Amino acid sequence: MTAQLINGRKIAHALKAEVTAEVAALADAGIACGLATVLVGDDYGSVAYVRRIGRIAEELGVAYEQVLLPGTTTQDELLATIDRLNRDPAVSGVLVLRPLPPQISEVDVFRALDPQKDIESVHPENAGLLALGTPRFVPSTAASVFHLLDSWLDEVGEDRAAFYHRSLIVVVGRSNNVGKPAISLAYDREAAMMSVDEWASREGRLGWHTRQADVLVVAAGVAGLIRAEHVRPGAVVIDVGINPREDPGTGQVRMVGDVEFDEARGRARAIAPVPGGVGPVTDVWLIRNTVHAATHHARKVS
Amino acid sequence: MTAQLINGRKIAHALKAEVTAEVAALADAGIACGLATVLVGDDYGSVAYVRRIGRIAEELGVAYEQVLLPGTTTQDELLATIDRLNRDPAVSGVLVLRPLPPQISEVDVFRALDPQKDIESVHPENAGLLALGTPRFVPSTAASVFHLLDSWLDEVGEDRAAFYHRSLIVVVGRSNNVGKPAISLAYDREAAMMSVDEWASREGRLGWHTRQADVLVVAAGVAGLIRAEHVRPGAVVIDVGINPREDPGTGQVRMVGDVEFDEARGRARAIAPVPGGVGPVTDVWLIRNTVHAATHHARKVS
Repeated sequence: MTAQLINGRKIAHALKAEVTAEVAALADAGIACGLATVLVGDDYGSVAYVRRIGRIAEELGVAYEQVLLPGTTTQDELLATIDRLNRDPAVSGVLVLRPLPPQISEVDVFRALDPQKDIESVHPENAGLLALGTPRFVPSTAASVFHLLDSWLDEVGEDRAAFYHRSLIVVVGRSNNVGKPAISLAYDREAAMMSVDEWASREGRLGWHTRQADVLVVAAGVAGLIRAEHVRPGAVVIDVGINPREDPGTGQVRMVGDVEFDEARGRARAIAPVPGGVGPVTDVWLIRNTVHAATHHARKVS
Repeated sequence: MTAQLINGRKIAHALKAEVTAEVAALADAGIACGLATVLVGDDYGSVAYVRRIGRIAEELGVAYEQVLLPGTTTQDELLATIDRLNRDPAVSGVLVLRPLPPQISEVDVFRALDPQKDIESVHPENAGLLALGTPRFVPSTAASVFHLLDSWLDEVGEDRAAFYHRSLIVVVGRSNNVGKPAISLAYDREAAMMSVDEWASREGRLGWHTRQADVLVVAAGVAGLIRAEHVRPGAVVIDVGINPREDPGTGQVRMVGDVEFDEARGRARAIAPVPGGVGPVTDVWLIRNTVHAATHHARKVS
């Protein structure tokens, strides 16, 4: 078997069309819609990410403010920035990039965000709404995992509800920003689901668990963690990892997923690769959440 | 194999001694500690529950206010009661009983609770803190499941961390008040975990999933759902269900769990039965959370 490719770029393209229409409708209604990102320091991945977000915001016609602060920024200074963005009516959604430098408490900063603008649901209130099954904003990466799955099911003509009801979704990795929200979304779809962390690996039980998976979502942050023997024949595999890997021949660095693509492709029914799977959809989803934040806000003040 | 009994009454007794000492320490420090429950209508199970809570509060020396409102209470009337309890310095913790009558929105009422007094973590902020792995209050039933497990591990001399790291915990049922918080606590213990809902049953896959479980937690609300064939030999079984069952001979009604005790006992390594397992610990845990709320509050105002 050679797995079908779940084409994230194509799915992102379709999603862009939807979001563009929503942005136009907002503009017609005279509603401001803007995204702000806050990056403290110069983490390589985060710098690349905000550059990409800037391009997509422009493409989709959403105002974008990129706040770049030095790595020596104090917590009070960052909180003052958050406060300014919370009050700015031109800003509908705010994303604070991880990692924050050690002098700053992530928890305190996330809690300072206006929950109505917290488009990644990092404020406890929004994390709670998500956990309770009534999300205000679905965090972009976890949302994209299920948007890829839903889009693929539509493409192959399988009924979504029937598929999820009979599926076990195994999520490898349980970070607050990806793994746990993905589990919450599996609840919503009434699938059976399993969450494993690094201990499954250390105890030699990773394959035992992952081979049960009808859908295998991998967000562990470990390049090539998932090999052929971890994949159940016929499974659908969604790779969320983004890891730098140096080619021993050329010395060039390229981004690879948590899944050994060539090995998994020989076992899976379908696979979302890295790059070109979750990533492109995530970027558009962030803008989509910004648009929804602007819509909610306009409803509240009108 | 005949399973060991995990004796909830004995474990609750030990927990009571701890809580009594905490209450005495609060009294010595001149800190008020009080619990309020709010029951709207006359649901049979809830009436029995608040009566039991009243007895335990008295036994442990915690002030207790039992608010009983008629089933015709409006949402505004209930919110006024919540507001009064939020402001009352003699009340440290508030529990609103489910179910609420149809004219009242559970979501609106839970959101109106002061998060500092929301000892069952039903307010979205507290649900979020729990989901993020930094709970303010751990809801009493889910907390009791793990308190029983921890106590049993201590009793048989097994290392808690080693046990959880190599275990798969399967939780049957995913309510916001029991199943989902239990999953969050499984995250904290770095166990692999699985959540299944009614669809696993409907799709005929329930046994397939539950037979993987090293620890099987059943909170489905279906009497006798778990039979011998659902239990992996050597598993630890925690039954959370409380269901009325009429004896066909005598017509008498008694409470039974979600697990067919006699069948599971022949397969499991250990089992927490109904009654006498989770229930007695849950009652004490609610008082414990009240004491912790009083302590937090005193720290904040001093």
